[in-house]
Amino acid sequence: MPPASFDERTGAEVREGLPPPLSDLSRLCIHTETTSPWKLPEAASAYERAGVPAITVWRESVAGHGPAEARRILEDHGLEIVSYVRGGFFAAASSAARRAAVAENVRVIEEAATLGAPLVVLVCGAVPGQPLETSRAQIRQGLEHIVPYAEAAGVRLGIEALHPVYADSRSAINTLRQANDLAETLDTPGLGVVVDVYHLWWDPDLRKEIARSGRNNRLFAFHICDWKTPTTHLLLDRGLMGEGCIPLRRIRGWMEEAGFEGHYEVEIFSEIYWREDQREFLEKIKRAYLAHT
Amino acid sequence: MPPASFDERTGAEVREGLPPPLSDLSRLCIHTETTSPWKLPEAASAYERAGVPAITVWRESVAGHGPAEARRILEDHGLEIVSYVRGGFFAAASSAARRAAVAENVRVIEEAATLGAPLVVLVCGAVPGQPLETSRAQIRQGLEHIVPYAEAAGVRLGIEALHPVYADSRSAINTLRQANDLAETLDTPGLGVVVDVYHLWWDPDLRKEIARSGRNNRLFAFHICDWKTPTTHLLLDRGLMGEGCIPLRRIRGWMEEAGFEGHYEVEIFSEIYWREDQREFLEKIKRAYLAHT
Repeated sequence: MPPASFDERTGAEVREGLPPPLSDLSRLCIHTETTSPWKLPEAASAYERAGVPAITVWRESVAGHGPAEARRILEDHGLEIVSYVRGGFFAAASSAARRAAVAENVRVIEEAATLGAPLVVLVCGAVPGQPLETSRAQIRQGLEHIVPYAEAAGVRLGIEALHPVYADSRSAINTLRQANDLAETLDTPGLGVVVDVYHLWWDPDLRKEIARSGRNNRLFAFHICDWKTPTTHLLLDRGLMGEGCIPLRRIRGWMEEAGFEGHYEVEIFSEIYWREDQREFLEKIKRAYLAHT
Repeated sequence: MPPASFDERTGAEVREGLPPPLSDLSRLCIHTETTSPWKLPEAASAYERAGVPAITVWRESVAGHGPAEARRILEDHGLEIVSYVRGGFFAAASSAARRAAVAENVRVIEEAATLGAPLVVLVCGAVPGQPLETSRAQIRQGLEHIVPYAEAAGVRLGIEALHPVYADSRSAINTLRQANDLAETLDTPGLGVVVDVYHLWWDPDLRKEIARSGRNNRLFAFHICDWKTPTTHLLLDRGLMGEGCIPLRRIRGWMEEAGFEGHYEVEIFSEIYWREDQREFLEKIKRAYLAHT
C-alpha cells in the first residue's frame, strides 16, 4: 500500500487512486546509456534475449556504426526504436557557437531519421554566468532554426526539462511549465516535452503540467529511474526504480490520466551499476520495472 | 558591465538597471557556520576586528555557552544579532517524532529570545519516500503549533525554501512561491520568508515572488553566496560571491525593489574554505561582498 497522502492546505487525507501494477514488459524501453559498458550490438542482443521490446539510442552508442548500420542491428533484434538522445545545447556565449549548435542539431535530426527514431530528445543548454533568460532566448532561437528540418525529416523534437541542480551549465529549462511554455510558443505539432521523473519529481506543479502537456498533445516521452537518499554524485548516482524517494507509480498514473500511451524508458546513469555484470543489472531492471513503475 | 540579458519570449535585449555596488560593510552579516572552524568567542572577536557589524548565530555555535552567555559575548563585541539558525524539520513519519519536533522548535524560540535574535530561520524538513504533500501538511501543522510561542516570545519565524536538490530529505518547501503560500495560509505577521540565493537563483518566478513577499511584509532575511560550476559536493561546496553563476547583484536589486532593508548575510558552507586560515577567508569575504553583492 502506498503511504497516505495529505492535502497540504487542509491537512485532509487524500485517497488518490494509483494505477494497477504493470503485468508485463510490453511498454518497457531501455536507454543504451543505462547499460553503458555494452556496445550497441551487445546491448541489442541482450535486450532481445531479456524480452525488452524497445530501445532508446544514445548518439555515443551509434559512433563506430553510423545510423544506417545501427538501424539494421536493432531491426535484426526486433527492437522498436523509441528515441534518439540527444540534441540541444543551444545556449552559447558566441553567435558562432550558437550557429554550430544549430548545424549539429540538424545532423542529429538527419541521424535520427536514418536510424528510424521518431523522436529526438533535447537537453537545451546553459552557460555558467550567462543570465538564464539569455540562455532561454538562445534556446528558443535555436529551436526556431531546427524545427523546419525536423518537420521535413518526419522527426519529432522533445524538450526535456532538467533538474534545477543543472541550471548552471546544462539547461536553463528546469520545470515542465517552462518546457510547455516553450513548446507552445513555437506552436508546431512536432515539438513537445519529455517527462523525466529524476528531474521533475519534486515540482508541486507536476501533475498539472503533465495534464497540460497531454491536452496539447505534447507528451512525447517518459523517462524513469529513482532519486537515492543520499545521492553521492550529481550526475552518475541515479537509482533503480524503487530505490529512492520518487513516487513513480503516482507519476505514471498522472501520465496515463493525461493520455500518454508511449513507452516507459529506463534511463539510469550509475557508476555503481555500470561496475556490475550488465546481464544481472538487466534482470534487476526488469524486476524493479514490474514492482515499482 | 553585466552580461546582456534577453527577454526569453521575444529575444529582445533587456536593459535592467542594476543597483550601484556596495560602498561599505554596513549591511554585512556573517553566519557563524561560514567560519565553522572558529568557536563563537573567536568568531565574535574576529568579526569585530574586521569591521563586520552583524552576525547570524548557528545553534551549534552556542552549545557550550548557552544563549545568555552567547548574547554577552556578542554584545561585548558590538555585534548586531540578525537571526538564529535553525529550527524546523517538522516532517516526520511518526506523530511522536512530529511532537518532539514541535517541542524542539519551542526550545529554539526560547533560545533565540534569550540570545536577543529577532528571527529564527526554519528549514522545514522532508522524509525520504513520504509524499511531499504529506510533508507539507506536517510542516503547516508544525508551524501552527509554534507560531503562538514565537509571538509570545517576540521572535519572528522565517521559512527558508531549499533547492529542489534537497527535496528528498531536507525540505519539501523548494520554491519561494511555496514559502509565500505557506506564510500567507497561516496569516500571522510574525511569519515570513528567507531568500537564499543558493537555493532560489534558478527559479524563473524569483523576481515576482520576491516582490510578493515584499508587498506582504514577509521579506525577513537574505542569504548570499555563489553556486560553483562544477559543484563537487551537494552540501559543502558553496562558493564565495562572484565565484559562480548566481546573478547576485540583480537579485539584490530585486530585494531592494521589494523594500528589503535588512542585512546581506554571508552563508557559505565550504570544505575548501574551512581548511584555509579563517582570518584570510574573512578578508576574502569582505572583498567579494563589496565587489559582487
